Amino acid sequence: MIRRFLFAALLLAAASAFAAEGKWTPQQMLELDPVMLKKQGLELPPSRLWDPKRGTGLLAATVNVSGCSGGFISPDGLFITNHHCLFSILQEHATPQNDVITNGFIASSRTAELPGHSLRLTMPRSFTDVTAKVLAAVPANASDADRNHAIERRSNELVAECEKRPQTRCKVSVFDGGVQYVLVDAQELSDIRLAYAPPRAIGEYGGETDNWMWPRHTGDFAIGRAYLDGKPYKSEFYFPISKKGANPGDFVMVLGYPGTTYRSLTAAEMAERRDLWFARRVDVYGEWIRLMEETTKGNADGTITVASDLKSLANRFKNAEGQIAGFKRGSILEKQQSADESVLAWAAKQPTHRAAVDAYNGLRAMIEEQKRTWEHDFLLSQIYGTNASSVPPGPKSLFFGTSVARSAIERQKPDETRDALYMQRNIPRLGERLEREQKNYFAPSDRAILASIVRRALALRAEQRIASIDRIFGNGANVDAKIAELYDGSKIFDLTERRAMLAETPEQLHARHDPLVELGFDLDREIRELSAHRDTWDGTVSRLRPVWRRAVIAHAGKPIAPDANSTLRFSYAHVKGYAPRDGVVYTPQTTVAGVVEKHTGEEPFDAPKPLLEAAKKRSDVVVDFLADADTTGGNSGSPAVNGRGELVGVNFDRVWENVANDFGYNPAIARNVNVDIRYLLWLLSDVYDGKALLKEMGGGGAPLR
Amino acid sequence: MIRRFLFAALLLAAASAFAAEGKWTPQQMLELDPVMLKKQGLELPPSRLWDPKRGTGLLAATVNVSGCSGGFISPDGLFITNHHCLFSILQEHATPQNDVITNGFIASSRTAELPGHSLRLTMPRSFTDVTAKVLAAVPANASDADRNHAIERRSNELVAECEKRPQTRCKVSVFDGGVQYVLVDAQELSDIRLAYAPPRAIGEYGGETDNWMWPRHTGDFAIGRAYLDGKPYKSEFYFPISKKGANPGDFVMVLGYPGTTYRSLTAAEMAERRDLWFARRVDVYGEWIRLMEETTKGNADGTITVASDLKSLANRFKNAEGQIAGFKRGSILEKQQSADESVLAWAAKQPTHRAAVDAYNGLRAMIEEQKRTWEHDFLLSQIYGTNASSVPPGPKSLFFGTSVARSAIERQKPDETRDALYMQRNIPRLGERLEREQKNYFAPSDRAILASIVRRALALRAEQRIASIDRIFGNGANVDAKIAELYDGSKIFDLTERRAMLAETPEQLHARHDPLVELGFDLDREIRELSAHRDTWDGTVSRLRPVWRRAVIAHAGKPIAPDANSTLRFSYAHVKGYAPRDGVVYTPQTTVAGVVEKHTGEEPFDAPKPLLEAAKKRSDVVVDFLADADTTGGNSGSPAVNGRGELVGVNFDRVWENVANDFGYNPAIARNVNVDIRYLLWLLSDVYDGKALLKEMGGGGAPLR
Repeated sequence: MIRRFLFAALLLAAASAFAAEGKWTPQQMLELDPVMLKKQGLELPPSRLWDPKRGTGLLAATVNVSGCSGGFISPDGLFITNHHCLFSILQEHATPQNDVITNGFIASSRTAELPGHSLRLTMPRSFTDVTAKVLAAVPANASDADRNHAIERRSNELVAECEKRPQTRCKVSVFDGGVQYVLVDAQELSDIRLAYAPPRAIGEYGGETDNWMWPRHTGDFAIGRAYLDGKPYKSEFYFPISKKGANPGDFVMVLGYPGTTYRSLTAAEMAERRDLWFARRVDVYGEWIRLMEETTKGNADGTITVASDLKSLANRFKNAEGQIAGFKRGSILEKQQSADESVLAWAAKQPTHRAAVDAYNGLRAMIEEQKRTWEHDFLLSQIYGTNASSVPPGPKSLFFGTSVARSAIERQKPDETRDALYMQRNIPRLGERLEREQKNYFAPSDRAILASIVRRALALRAEQRIASIDRIFGNGANVDAKIAELYDGSKIFDLTERRAMLAETPEQLHARHDPLVELGFDLDREIRELSAHRDTWDGTVSRLRPVWRRAVIAHAGKPIAPDANSTLRFSYAHVKGYAPRDGVVYTPQTTVAGVVEKHTGEEPFDAPKPLLEAAKKRSDVVVDFLADADTTGGNSGSPAVNGRGELVGVNFDRVWENVANDFGYNPAIARNVNVDIRYLLWLLSDVYDGKALLKEMGGGGAPLR
Repeated sequence: MIRRFLFAALLLAAASAFAAEGKWTPQQMLELDPVMLKKQGLELPPSRLWDPKRGTGLLAATVNVSGCSGGFISPDGLFITNHHCLFSILQEHATPQNDVITNGFIASSRTAELPGHSLRLTMPRSFTDVTAKVLAAVPANASDADRNHAIERRSNELVAECEKRPQTRCKVSVFDGGVQYVLVDAQELSDIRLAYAPPRAIGEYGGETDNWMWPRHTGDFAIGRAYLDGKPYKSEFYFPISKKGANPGDFVMVLGYPGTTYRSLTAAEMAERRDLWFARRVDVYGEWIRLMEETTKGNADGTITVASDLKSLANRFKNAEGQIAGFKRGSILEKQQSADESVLAWAAKQPTHRAAVDAYNGLRAMIEEQKRTWEHDFLLSQIYGTNASSVPPGPKSLFFGTSVARSAIERQKPDETRDALYMQRNIPRLGERLEREQKNYFAPSDRAILASIVRRALALRAEQRIASIDRIFGNGANVDAKIAELYDGSKIFDLTERRAMLAETPEQLHARHDPLVELGFDLDREIRELSAHRDTWDGTVSRLRPVWRRAVIAHAGKPIAPDANSTLRFSYAHVKGYAPRDGVVYTPQTTVAGVVEKHTGEEPFDAPKPLLEAAKKRSDVVVDFLADADTTGGNSGSPAVNGRGELVGVNFDRVWENVANDFGYNPAIARNVNVDIRYLLWLLSDVYDGKALLKEMGGGGAPLR
């Protein structure tokens, strides 16, 4: 015990020399000093990670699984990611007779693997800088809205051209608001099967109580296999399993597809995030969590049905709270203000960067403009999904209604001019999404959340009112009765009907006189108006941000990693603890002894009996570890890889103190949370029978300490 | 920061070589190996602490302040203890115009000190072994009840003889149930004045939220002065202030009057504590806390009135919860069972200790006997104070009623045969106690708690019923109305009336036809029956425990510190942190930076503005520290003294993990919580104007780091 403290403290001290800021692109990784990387602990030559000639390398073993990250761990398509990232497959297959959610699942052979119908796995084939091509499409003196449309159209054309190959997904990724546009060409595999998931009580051990927290004891991993043409996919690159796991001071790379960060924002934009965006999320999601809990209390079906949405809401809620606290803790806004001022003062004297001052002021003016209708826009954004992977947190009724209406309208246009979500190539996944959401629809919760939106909308000031809601609920009387009428009079919750609706024209839909479809058309009109505003603002950003950011980068005089944008990134780090507050030090590893210590026999601390039994023989197996990797949402399931390119763990969270990391990196508290591969090996060898899987993973036998 | 971790960890490692179990009596301290004590860090010769020839020494600078511990810090009667130990003086003097509770108090001169009317300070003059004298009073073949009475009577005689000197308080202290009886002769000072108390927001910083917790940031100290014949008391011994405070690894002695521990109990007795005593306290006090909060909600007067009782209940509640958790954590019962079995097996083979086996079995039989009426006895014990310093947690109505009735009955007997509480020498303090409790009486809370007792009593099985309650509330109907009649028809809440009642005979009292007085007489009869049972059990314990304990001690073959019994004890320790759970290390010191970190502007984390201002200049001042001293309740206010006999801090709590320490010492988590003297020096020098006091304390200037 004492030796553990001492060891940990020494390594805290030693490792403090490094700072791990930066979610580097593969290209940027090659620009980092290779001697420095070697000193940090990278034993492979950087070119093994990414060969600039071929435009690929070991990093390409990092996959994107429907918004999560993951990594191949065998040449036969086996990949590892988080438990929650493959949870939808468990949901598809769980029955009262065979409750794979509760019991977990180990495929006894390849044929026994569980197919997942809604997951897709992609991995990059190439990255091409298309900045010049994209910007060439913008007419001289275009308005910001036109500028945005031109960029979108050109991007869509590039994507369409790229996707002519089969099993291909492409996208044009925007870096820091337009400093660079990159065409990402990725292989897509849609036949994804589940090979292993631990019992939920292990995969979600600690549940919402421990979410964002340390010390952590969650076995948040699952293993899938990707198939191509019915055969296991042969990945050129994969991360062999290291039986040694990750120990204090060890070098680790965390690879993945981080979603969105905001470090390139100006102070005024950060203030908007803190004071409006996060503040309102705390308020609204806090209420919705309560409503979901109240409406499902004592109802087992309801509880299961809303579980996934509730978890997602709780996650957003806790995140928003943490962001606000983190802003305070790190004085992030004050620091950004002062950094901005330095760049402004410098740029004003640079002939090549003088325009950055105007760009900066332009961004501030845009924020002021947004504030005029901010509350209205926020509420609308809760009821309509803005991208292919996001399901809005609002009621399914409005999500279904607006999706059906929008789809009908968009499908009347030529494919390339449509909103991207409704292009022909995306229609099947829109259908899947609407189908999948049926599993999460529980009428009493859904109605309560709609009532909350209605009451909030009715409380807005005149210039921010939502007309579609006013039309039905205008005087604020009998809200619940009116909501009951909407739901009782609609067929949109019937899966067959909804599927049919998705193929109908606007005329056919109107002929149904379905009140939720009609409300969907109404809301869609307002959402289009909002989208038009957003197009303008996006255009403004694409015009101004690159000017400002180029000044920031020039002023820094060294490489700066761009904000996360769901593209492949490389973060190097070390295993280390931290001091969350006066008088407390968190050591960087937890063990099975801690799982037992937390066990209460009740959710979320109800460790399975076989684990408790096995722990009596061996309780020093490492469960989770901390590192100072630079991560964010989307890094869920990211492989944590040692300096030899071997898998030592899987990232699944950040610590609470580090949530505002999205706005600024603070080395003192920037810690991501990983599950150690040794926990998985122990579960498969000593607790459950996972011999076949262990053999394929090259593991087997007890994990090393 | 990093250096702090490293340093702490090194010292954790170094200090782990020591184990600090034992609340040693002054005499036992002299029996410890002086070379060992020197190695631990004691620089003074042990005879400076306690001179066996004179029967006194530096340890005698440790005082008892109405149940708390404290220590003289100047030759002129100045003593330091905890904030909560002198809180009653603040309560006496606080007015809306001069709210010394909120603002704190610093006496500008001696004449400005605030007199306290209900506090007494004692310090030991001599300890005399009177075992033979006491036991000589027990007739051959006495019943256990008679045995107990004989011991009590002889003890009372010895005390009466001893107290013939003025300003003297004596008692016969029983060690481990009768292994030894010691006559403690103490000087008593009743003129106690307040010289300094910090604002409540410092003295109680963290409040109930942080109670029993680490990291801690409470400035739980206050300074009083004892007077004799109107002049500052000249103490022969005192602890000079050390400006260096206590740092990781430092040797500290914690001196004081620990109240009650249970390490000498057998496993069966410990099981009764865990499964009945603590379990029922969690249940009952948890309900009463809720009732007090509900009945005072939104009522400022009520909130202030019940504050002290609520705090005390919350403390007992949290303690009971911690004891149960600690039993589990430390497998205390299982270990005691196995230790008992070793002694039993050994004793069975020893001619001189064979009787210990029967004694052990006799103690077990007694526990079984107690269980028959356990619930009845527990409820009764909540409404009647069993010793001079304890106020029962039940309603004041029953406390006043039973006290008045019992007093009338007892005062009819010759003084030396009375229940000790009602002997002539104690009557004034009984009066004071009844008077003081007026401040804590808030009718709605009091009625709600009585209703709770009534409902619980009515739910008991036939053989455990409380007859007095059955007589009034027998059928369980209209409980609240009947309670209202009791309160509305009684004059017992009128201080003048109650004072008068305390001087009346039973006949005079009955002539009042006061319903609460009558209920008091009724309950008193049942309490007497319970007392008779208890006398028997006490006699059983005094007969059997010494036999058993002598076997335990002989089996151990080394000194064993007796259980705490409110006599002066010496505990040696070191400043060190601990690992409360997997993944977490607590460092042993907190700083002013942590006070600022916790500050929310709302109770209990509402640091005063002057402190926040001063913290901007200096935030590394040490606030609290952990040591592995062996403490319990009663050690509140214990001086923490370095190896040179200088005061470095004041003990005020134990950590949550260590509460079950009362049943067994676990070096891994046995930590007491102290405030560092440097925090006090900083407050008096840099935050508030305490120059005069600093000068007298030999301090002044900024504290050293």
